[in-house]
Amino acid sequence: MRVAIFGQGYVASILAVGLQRIKNGEIGYEGIPLADCIPRKIEDIELTTAFDIDVSKVGRRLSEVVQAYWHDGIKFENDYEVKLGYEDMRGRGVDVDFEEVVGQLIDEYRRADVEIFVNLITTEKAEPFEDVQELKRAIRENDVDRVSPAQLYFYSVAEYERPSAFINCIPSPIANDPACVELASRSKTVIFGDDGASGATPLTADLLAHLQQRGRKVLCISQFNIGGNTDFLSLMEPERNASKETTKSSIVSDILGYDVPHFIKPTGYLEPLGDKKFVAMHIPYISFNGAEDELIINARINDSPALAGLIVDLIRLAALAIERNEFGTVYPINAFYMKMPGPKEARAIPKMFAFELVKSWVYETPSIKAT
Amino acid sequence: MRVAIFGQGYVASILAVGLQRIKNGEIGYEGIPLADCIPRKIEDIELTTAFDIDVSKVGRRLSEVVQAYWHDGIKFENDYEVKLGYEDMRGRGVDVDFEEVVGQLIDEYRRADVEIFVNLITTEKAEPFEDVQELKRAIRENDVDRVSPAQLYFYSVAEYERPSAFINCIPSPIANDPACVELASRSKTVIFGDDGASGATPLTADLLAHLQQRGRKVLCISQFNIGGNTDFLSLMEPERNASKETTKSSIVSDILGYDVPHFIKPTGYLEPLGDKKFVAMHIPYISFNGAEDELIINARINDSPALAGLIVDLIRLAALAIERNEFGTVYPINAFYMKMPGPKEARAIPKMFAFELVKSWVYETPSIKAT
Amino acid sequence: MRVAIFGQGYVASILAVGLQRIKNGEIGYEGIPLADCIPRKIEDIELTTAFDIDVSKVGRRLSEVVQAYWHDGIKFENDYEVKLGYEDMRGRGVDVDFEEVVGQLIDEYRRADVEIFVNLITTEKAEPFEDVQELKRAIRENDVDRVSPAQLYFYSVAEYERPSAFINCIPSPIANDPACVELASRSKTVIFGDDGASGATPLTADLLAHLQQRGRKVLCISQFNIGGNTDFLSLMEPERNASKETTKSSIVSDILGYDVPHFIKPTGYLEPLGDKKFVAMHIPYISFNGAEDELIINARINDSPALAGLIVDLIRLAALAIERNEFGTVYPINAFYMKMPGPKEARAIPKMFAFELVKSWVYETPSIKAT
Amino acid sequence: MRVAIFGQGYVASILAVGLQRIKNGEIGYEGIPLADCIPRKIEDIELTTAFDIDVSKVGRRLSEVVQAYWHDGIKFENDYEVKLGYEDMRGRGVDVDFEEVVGQLIDEYRRADVEIFVNLITTEKAEPFEDVQELKRAIRENDVDRVSPAQLYFYSVAEYERPSAFINCIPSPIANDPACVELASRSKTVIFGDDGASGATPLTADLLAHLQQRGRKVLCISQFNIGGNTDFLSLMEPERNASKETTKSSIVSDILGYDVPHFIKPTGYLEPLGDKKFVAMHIPYISFNGAEDELIINARINDSPALAGLIVDLIRLAALAIERNEFGTVYPINAFYMKMPGPKEARAIPKMFAFELVKSWVYETPSIKAT
Repeated sequence: MRVAIFGQGYVASILAVGLQRIKNGEIGYEGIPLADCIPRKIEDIELTTAFDIDVSKVGRRLSEVVQAYWHDGIKFENDYEVKLGYEDMRGRGVDVDFEEVVGQLIDEYRRADVEIFVNLITTEKAEPFEDVQELKRAIRENDVDRVSPAQLYFYSVAEYERPSAFINCIPSPIANDPACVELASRSKTVIFGDDGASGATPLTADLLAHLQQRGRKVLCISQFNIGGNTDFLSLMEPERNASKETTKSSIVSDILGYDVPHFIKPTGYLEPLGDKKFVAMHIPYISFNGAEDELIINARINDSPALAGLIVDLIRLAALAIERNEFGTVYPINAFYMKMPGPKEARAIPKMFAFELVKSWVYETPSIKAT
Repeated sequence: MRVAIFGQGYVASILAVGLQRIKNGEIGYEGIPLADCIPRKIEDIELTTAFDIDVSKVGRRLSEVVQAYWHDGIKFENDYEVKLGYEDMRGRGVDVDFEEVVGQLIDEYRRADVEIFVNLITTEKAEPFEDVQELKRAIRENDVDRVSPAQLYFYSVAEYERPSAFINCIPSPIANDPACVELASRSKTVIFGDDGASGATPLTADLLAHLQQRGRKVLCISQFNIGGNTDFLSLMEPERNASKETTKSSIVSDILGYDVPHFIKPTGYLEPLGDKKFVAMHIPYISFNGAEDELIINARINDSPALAGLIVDLIRLAALAIERNEFGTVYPINAFYMKMPGPKEARAIPKMFAFELVKSWVYETPSIKAT
Repeated sequence: MRVAIFGQGYVASILAVGLQRIKNGEIGYEGIPLADCIPRKIEDIELTTAFDIDVSKVGRRLSEVVQAYWHDGIKFENDYEVKLGYEDMRGRGVDVDFEEVVGQLIDEYRRADVEIFVNLITTEKAEPFEDVQELKRAIRENDVDRVSPAQLYFYSVAEYERPSAFINCIPSPIANDPACVELASRSKTVIFGDDGASGATPLTADLLAHLQQRGRKVLCISQFNIGGNTDFLSLMEPERNASKETTKSSIVSDILGYDVPHFIKPTGYLEPLGDKKFVAMHIPYISFNGAEDELIINARINDSPALAGLIVDLIRLAALAIERNEFGTVYPINAFYMKMPGPKEARAIPKMFAFELVKSWVYETPSIKAT
Repeated sequence: MRVAIFGQGYVASILAVGLQRIKNGEIGYEGIPLADCIPRKIEDIELTTAFDIDVSKVGRRLSEVVQAYWHDGIKFENDYEVKLGYEDMRGRGVDVDFEEVVGQLIDEYRRADVEIFVNLITTEKAEPFEDVQELKRAIRENDVDRVSPAQLYFYSVAEYERPSAFINCIPSPIANDPACVELASRSKTVIFGDDGASGATPLTADLLAHLQQRGRKVLCISQFNIGGNTDFLSLMEPERNASKETTKSSIVSDILGYDVPHFIKPTGYLEPLGDKKFVAMHIPYISFNGAEDELIINARINDSPALAGLIVDLIRLAALAIERNEFGTVYPINAFYMKMPGPKEARAIPKMFAFELVKSWVYETPSIKAT
């Protein structure tokens, strides 16, 4: 399984370190949901190239870039050089020739002989195209103000001539954009997305399902997150945070079956917390005979390893999907691994059931139905 | 559905109050898992009689007893008188004629025209009989040092000539005692048990399943509980607490698939907390690439309403089971509603899946299999 | 002690209810720091009048307004009518004759025979005048865009001919504005302020002092607050929140002696929480030999009673200050009761020491010095 | 300052490591309350010898023993050999010649030229002697069933001919035993004790003081502690825990001025937690107008560094006390640094005030009085 990375930041670096340490026999399969219960070996994943726009990374070797995120030295099997990616050009008033950009990217894909792509660029604001003609028009007309970097990367993968997979770990609508899904179907591309379900949201989803199963009436939900990695820094920009907020709060009514007032969003940035965020949640609810109970959850969660562990599965599931010719998007995978599972009309389900869907898909057994 | 109660304490009183308020239209179905998704109406439950050994309760009307647990006045449709039950005679060196005791109980059951029995007596120490002959021998020989009150009540229900159900909400082994289950099968008795799954343990079970699904390696588990109701008071006696401890910690290895050091047991008694206990949990675990995360859960939970809400379902499910002639014990029901689901060889599963089993059983649809 | 209220909202209503219930002998002195350790009786406090701008309150009796905040009926000794106050006219492009407004207010003060004024209007944006001439100019020239309601109310109290006290429970700079303090000194007015120190900030202050005394190096501080009263609603407007933020974060460097990255501010509004807010705090720190510890504090705090209890003291301390001719502002009082203790150059000290200052002031004993 | 250690366990090892790293310039003074605000340099502390009874430690070098508690290698300036100490002989039916034991210990003290002794042996059960004659009798008659190891070590220090100090960091009554204090006065010995105030109890004390200052009525207090070091292991033996419990709960009524139901004690042992314990606290209280609030505190605290940091101060304060001829016990020091400050009749005060007492004592300024 040959993999390319968009965005050589914290998650991509921890992914590289963890995979190498597994290959070295230094650590086990902790944090990888399917571990060895899947007919693809973790040790066969090869990270082959990465694209970034940060000048301090472009042209550097993986081992150099990783030093910012991992302080024990490590030697990589394939110590690739980070390539220049596509920078956000919206609102900059510059001319871009998309055909040329896409061509250069595809040249790199060929050179690295890649089939699976993982999108880990910084959270961005992006609008779905809805219609595949609209997407094609924007590319054709070099409509630089319309196309986000994630959308451009996806497009380049769809244009790449071989069957491949695009794993979208950020909130930009790819699996949730009917235009992208249709283009993927046509071009033999698998999409997994959108927004990797690490962090506190899957936990919230399962807690809400737990309460819902007992008939408890949730009164409101507070979920605070504060961290010190660049993801939190970028989310403090109101526009980016808005896209995160959409993602996260859809789970409430999907799972409870009714809406309640809630505050669920990244709350702040504190540099000393680094990658290990602090989460606080508060859920008061009504039990039998009008009794009022409350749950308070606090957590310290290493953000990047949580997502990197999921990506280890997603890469292997992408290889399976390509082999099975399941192009377009694959809801059973998205339902567990993504915060905003595509396609567009899909709803969030408790992660505990979603995991059963994943296993049914992997083993090709009849799937359960959470009612 | 005509119901008798063993143990007219906090839970039984809140159950009576809640049912009456639902009939009065004062409250909704909060805290009742199946609410109106089951072909038996909550409003058709009739509490008809209760047995207790507390002299301050025996001979009093329900409405008088309830005043100790519920301060707003309430008028009951059926304001029954609490009858004298069977007191624990073990180690007291007295003679008891079990045939006579059982006969008197059954007379009351007939008089009240009961078919469903809910066991809510104080947590007791009890040993399973394992073999039905051993149980019969202990009764026949009036072996007063062997038979616990819960076992005697169960036996009286099995002897009661009509098809009936015994819902065991305390940790005494009834559904987990092969002797009781066999006797129940022969005598057209349904057993649901053991130990109603309210409180923090089902939450712990679902949280552990959540971590397990993500491949996270749990390092250890602390779960403290402190409350001010008589259940906590009695659990502070080391012998009673031992039986509680057995129940609760079996979930760890059942759900995680491996054992970890854990401290899960009622921890203390503080009278001012009353029925609303304080729970604190701490779960550190290893995520991808060796990262150490931790979860801390705090909760304030009203103990009695949580269990009473489950009993509203269990009574209705018992009526269904009798109608369907499912005598002995019913694992799909126990798996969700009980902390130590019978029969003996059954294991704990995440409550979230167990709930699907319940619904499959109710609707007689093919059941899922949590793998 | 005859008292007038600016802003007949939650706090003022709970203050009125609590004082009446104390007079009725229904409750004790809980939540009143000095309780009966002060030579002024709580029972001698008389609320005589109030000013508000909410049309649903103006012209109504206290007992009617209170119904929105307190659901058990209550009968007031003095069931005053709420009068029309001064509405914020900044940026509205209207003409106001300040002399006339102030004259009408003072007429009411005389009629109600008031000597102590408590400012409880909604949090507003306000700029200090710094110089008393500047304040006088703005009033004289009817500079309606410069003068905030709190500043106008203060000015009217300073113009009121008898010795009196202005207790500023909101963040507007009154005790922290040298202009107001100087005017107060000249006009025999006592100022206590600014921003009543209820809520989580005093707790944070004492926790930081606790860590500081042990030489522990705080790494960062997160403090989230979410509530459902109108104060939280108004703080969600960025401009108002900014004034709150200033107040709260000054404590960090004042108490620790060094600054650390911190996030301390009202975080959200959830209507179902009502007046009982949820607070979550996280403080990681370095202990001996580089060990990293962390504190997590969660709280449910009824906001309005917390402040109302302090006001019961402040009214009595104001009466003492008037009697002692301590006009201007009184730092020992402010240091304990206020989040941003005036005068301007004063710094925050741990509340635990500040309380000793209060007692020294009350008993006129030599004061301690927290070093 | 030449120091001997009784009990070369976790705390003593971290103390040795931390002091060496400070001398090496690797770390700062974090976790040392008085840091550089005291006329004795941390760098002048010399650990010269230690006594233990664990066969895996006796005869080994400090650097070898430390490996069990500190995994990064470290080189000690004075890499002393651990000597055999006095083992608990109570209830063993053996003969011991105390004079000989004490003689051998004193020989070692002389050889190592020690003046300050730190008692860090495992928590033990011990009864105060109350009367100095009773203590002397027990020693003279070799009453091996009466004298605990801590008491024997103290006695040996008192017999040591030079002015010296005994810092008692465990709950055994030394500073709280009038017999020991009198003997210390006579023999030019300083006692600091009893039971080093690290851990959650000082935090609880300050939190209760915080509530008390605001007139809030505490309803009850839960404080759970669970850890994985040998201290927790030993406290799980009911007899040892009893002595811990006495210590900790005296703070409630001392600080609040009234008693409330409370559960404050080490709760369990979980080996994977190691030296970093988990603490959960719950404090509900009544505020103004009968409102019920609650505080929940969770903490992860490294036990050994917390105590080791205090010992760095206590050693230096002991040197000061010897120089000032303040023999017997020194309440202002005990009040801050000890959980059960001696002498016997002393009461617990909020730690925040106690710290002011320490500073007054150090700088010989007039002391404050917390009222």
